[in-house]
Formats: sequence, C-alpha cells, structure tokens
Amino acid sequence: MNQNPEHAGVSLPGDEGYVLPKPPYMAVIFVSLRRENDHGYAEMAARMEQLAQQQEGFLGLTHARVAGKGITISYWTDRQAIRNWKSQVDHLQAQKLGRSDWYETYMVQIAEVGEAYNGP
Amino acid sequence: MNQNPEHAGVSLPGDEGYVLPKPPYMAVIFVSLRRENDHGYAEMAARMEQLAQQQEGFLGLTHARVAGKGITISYWTDRQAIRNWKSQVDHLQAQKLGRSDWYETYMVQIAEVGEAYNGP
Repeated sequence: MNQNPEHAGVSLPGDEGYVLPKPPYMAVIFVSLRRENDHGYAEMAARMEQLAQQQEGFLGLTHARVAGKGITISYWTDRQAIRNWKSQVDHLQAQKLGRSDWYETYMVQIAEVGEAYNGP
Repeated sequence: MNQNPEHAGVSLPGDEGYVLPKPPYMAVIFVSLRRENDHGYAEMAARMEQLAQQQEGFLGLTHARVAGKGITISYWTDRQAIRNWKSQVDHLQAQKLGRSDWYETYMVQIAEVGEAYNGP
C-alpha cells in the first residue's frame, strides 16, 4: 500500500511473480552439483517450489543452472519459517532422495539479507 | 591448519578453488536479466572475477545462468571489503557498462551468512 520508494522491496529478475519486502529477511542459498543420472529431478523440483509457496513465511525463489551445477535461493520471513520448511514431510522425502540419488555434492547457507536494491 | 571438522568451512560445489571459512561472513547476491545484445560481456565478467580475487577480503564466487538470467554470489569477509570492491575503479567502469549496455534489470542483495554446511 505504501508507494514511498524507500519502503518498497525488490523484484526478482526473471521470476515476475515474486516481489520481496524491505529487508531484513532470510535467504537460503543452495548450490549443488547433480549426478548424470537424475531421473525424476525436474518433476520433484517443480513440486517442491509449489509446496514451498504454500509454506508460511515463504517470500520467493530464484534459480539458475549451468551444466550440472545449480544455484537456488529461496527467501523467507525468518529462521523459524526456514526450520518449518526443512522439516516439512514431503520436503524431507525430497531431501532424502537428493542425498541418495541426485546430488554429487551440495552446499547450504542460511543468510540474513540486510540490504537490497534493483537496477539499473 | 585446524583439522577439526567443527572449525572447517564449506567448499563451493563446482568451483573447486574456493573453500569458505566458518561463518559469519558476507554474501553479495546478484541476479540479472541480460539484454540480447551483450557484446563484450563474457570477457568483462571473467576479468571482474580475476580482479575480485585480488581484492582484500574476497573469499569466493559462484555463478550459474539459464537463458538470459544469471545468478552470481560473491563472498567477502566483511561489509568494508564489499564497499571497497564496489568502488574499485575498473569495477566502477564495468558497473557503468552493465547499467547502460548489458542488463535489462538486476537485483543486488547484501546478506550475512550465519550458517553453512556441505552434503550429502
């Protein structure tokens, strides 16, 4: 409702649906290398995004990949929302498959966004 | 020198050269949509990564892109290191070209990483 630019959040380039609020909020950075045989991965990834959208505290998501390497950043209101998502039942199942079948290696970082802006 | 896993940092999947220290440290998240005509972009991006590596406080970098959308995350020891890199002369020139020639739109976020782990 507030049209003052100082109070506006940022929009995620390429993911028009997502407009983030003014900081602070939380980001989960997920960088992964996938195995060559990643049967079922794309379907699960799409389903997990849909599920995340239904979680309380979910703010948005962006991802990109080159060859087998992927970067996914999801945004959340606070740490509790991240903990809730991490322990969501269907997401637990996806995490298990990720560890056993899909990911050669991955890295997870939890970070607090303190500043954000769009350009040019 | 410390081999205790509790004191070890994480490695960035797909960018073997980079091992990050134990948190806290800072991340700059850059998400962009490029114009179709992005002549000279790849060369400049490679040169900027080389330059960043020479900056004090630089810890590592990872990037991926799909179609015209790119995600680059660079890691730094602290906010001052980020400010120094933002005002580095050659980087200022690259930022100017980015705004005028390469980027349709972009988003920058500055975040403090508080937790990080590798898997599986």
